[in-house]
Amino acid sequence: MREQAEFGKLVIFGAGLVGGSFALALKAAGQVQEVVGFGRSLSGMKQALEFGIVDRVGINPGHEIPDADLVLIASPVAQMPEVMARIAPYLGERTLVTDGGSTKMDAVAAAREFFGGRIGQFIPGHPIAGAEHSGPAAARADLYRNKKVVLTPLPENTPLDVARIRSAWEWCGAQIHELSPAEHDRIFAAVSHLPHLLSYALVYDLAQREDSGRLFAFAASGFRDFTRIAASHPEMWRDICLANRLPLLAELEAYRRQLDALYAALEANDGGRLNDVFTAARAARRAWASEAEK
Amino acid sequence: MREQAEFGKLVIFGAGLVGGSFALALKAAGQVQEVVGFGRSLSGMKQALEFGIVDRVGINPGHEIPDADLVLIASPVAQMPEVMARIAPYLGERTLVTDGGSTKMDAVAAAREFFGGRIGQFIPGHPIAGAEHSGPAAARADLYRNKKVVLTPLPENTPLDVARIRSAWEWCGAQIHELSPAEHDRIFAAVSHLPHLLSYALVYDLAQREDSGRLFAFAASGFRDFTRIAASHPEMWRDICLANRLPLLAELEAYRRQLDALYAALEANDGGRLNDVFTAARAARRAWASEAEK
Repeated sequence: MREQAEFGKLVIFGAGLVGGSFALALKAAGQVQEVVGFGRSLSGMKQALEFGIVDRVGINPGHEIPDADLVLIASPVAQMPEVMARIAPYLGERTLVTDGGSTKMDAVAAAREFFGGRIGQFIPGHPIAGAEHSGPAAARADLYRNKKVVLTPLPENTPLDVARIRSAWEWCGAQIHELSPAEHDRIFAAVSHLPHLLSYALVYDLAQREDSGRLFAFAASGFRDFTRIAASHPEMWRDICLANRLPLLAELEAYRRQLDALYAALEANDGGRLNDVFTAARAARRAWASEAEK
Repeated sequence: MREQAEFGKLVIFGAGLVGGSFALALKAAGQVQEVVGFGRSLSGMKQALEFGIVDRVGINPGHEIPDADLVLIASPVAQMPEVMARIAPYLGERTLVTDGGSTKMDAVAAAREFFGGRIGQFIPGHPIAGAEHSGPAAARADLYRNKKVVLTPLPENTPLDVARIRSAWEWCGAQIHELSPAEHDRIFAAVSHLPHLLSYALVYDLAQREDSGRLFAFAASGFRDFTRIAASHPEMWRDICLANRLPLLAELEAYRRQLDALYAALEANDGGRLNDVFTAARAARRAWASEAEK
C-alpha cells in the first residue's frame, strides 16, 4: 500500500500531543511513508521512537527538509520563529509547511519574515483538540477524530496546496474550517484565551490571601469546573497571551465593562438586571451545549 | 426499629434536590418516623409522595409544626422569610429548625425577625452538594455522602441542639464543619458566588454580539468547563447574589483589581508577570485538586 500514501516524507517539529497525534493518525491511515521528528529533548524523541510516532530522529534540517512533502511545526508558539528560521533555507520545491499553533497572526508574521518568497508554501493551521496531558505519551491516533481544525490560508497559497493540507487533516478524522488569520485570533481570544486568563486570575486572587487554605477547603464542583483550565501549562499560556496580545486586550476590556455593569446592578440591588443577564447567559450556554453535542 | 429513630417527625419545606435527599437519607438510615412535606407546586408534592420522599403532604403548618422534632427549610433563599413567618407561631418546645440555604447572614436575619425569643431553636446550615438537576426526581438518599455540610450556629443555640442537627447530617453521610454566618458568607462569595457571576458574565458578553454564532462555533473544552455553571438556575443565583450582596461586591472588587493588573502586564508585554501569576495559580489549583480528591 505504500505507493498509495498521499505524503511520502513527513517531518514534525515537536512529537508531543499535537505533532505526535498527527503523525500517528496519518500512519494509521497509511498516508505517510516515513516520519522524521525533531525535538528539543532527547528523552522526548526517544519516547517518540519507542511509541512508533517517528521512524527516525532528525538531526540536520539541511538533510531532512529538501525532500520532505510535509512539515508540521508543532512547537510551542514562542519557538515557532526559531524553527521557521532553521528550515527556511532548505524548503524543497514541493515541500508544504503547516503548523499547529493556537495563534495565527504571529505565525504568519514569522513565516513571512523567514520564508520570504516561499510564503506560499506555508498554510497555517490550528487543531482544536486540547487535552490535559502533553508529551509523546499523550499522543493518540484518534485525538483529532471529529475535532475541529481551523486553517487560515494566505493569499499566496494555491488552492491545490490548501486542499492537500485539508486532506491531511481529514485523514486524521478532523472537520476542517477556514478563517482568515485575523478572524481566527479574534475568535480564539474571546472563546479560549480570555477564559484561561479569567480562570488563572480567580485562583491567583484566592491563593494570594492569608486564609487561602480555608477558602479552598470549601470550594466545590462549581469552582472545580471554572478553574480546571487554571491548571494549564503556564509558559504555553503566557506565550499565547503575548502572541495574541491586542485581540486579547480588546476582549479583556469588553469583559471588564460587563463586570462593571454587573457590579453596578448588584450595588443597586437590581435583581431584574441580574436575572436578565443570567437568563440570557443560561439560554446561550444551553443552546451551545446542545449544538456542541451533535 | 421505629422506637430507635432519632427524630420522630420531620417536616420539610421543599421536597426537591436538597430537602428530598435529606428526607430520603434519614429514612434510609431509619432515623425518622414520619416525613411531612410542604411545597409550592402540587405536581412537585405528588412526585415527592410517589418517590417515597414524604409520607404526607402538609397543608396547615398550625397542624404540623407543633409536634415536629425537626423542620428543614429547603426553599429557595428568597422564600425563606415567608416560610419562617408561616411556621414561627407554631414552633413546639422541642422543635428544631434548620435550613439548606446557600447564604447564611440573610437566613439568620430573617430567623431573628420571625422567631424572636425562639431564635435558639434555629440552627442555620448549608449542605455543599450541588447537582445539575433539581426537583423531587433529582433527590437521592446518597447525595450528601462524603459531602461537606456547614453549620453556622448562633450564640443562642444550645450545644445539645447543635449536636442534634450535626447528628442528622451525619446520618446522611456528610462531613460537618462549623463557621460563623459571616465567615460562611465571605468564603462562599469567594469560592462559589463570584465564579458563577464571572461565568454568566462571559457567556452574556459573547451572546450579545452580532457574530455570537460564529464565536460559539469555535468554543471547545476550556470554554465548556469554564461556563458549565453559567447554565445554573437564574432566579436562584439572582437571589443568592442579592442575599450575599456586600461580600460578593467585595470579592468582585478584588477580582477586578486582579484583572486590571493582568491587563497592565499584557499591555506592557510583561511575560514574566503573566508567567508568575499563571504558575502560582496552577500550583494552587493542583494542590487543591489533590487535596479535594482525598
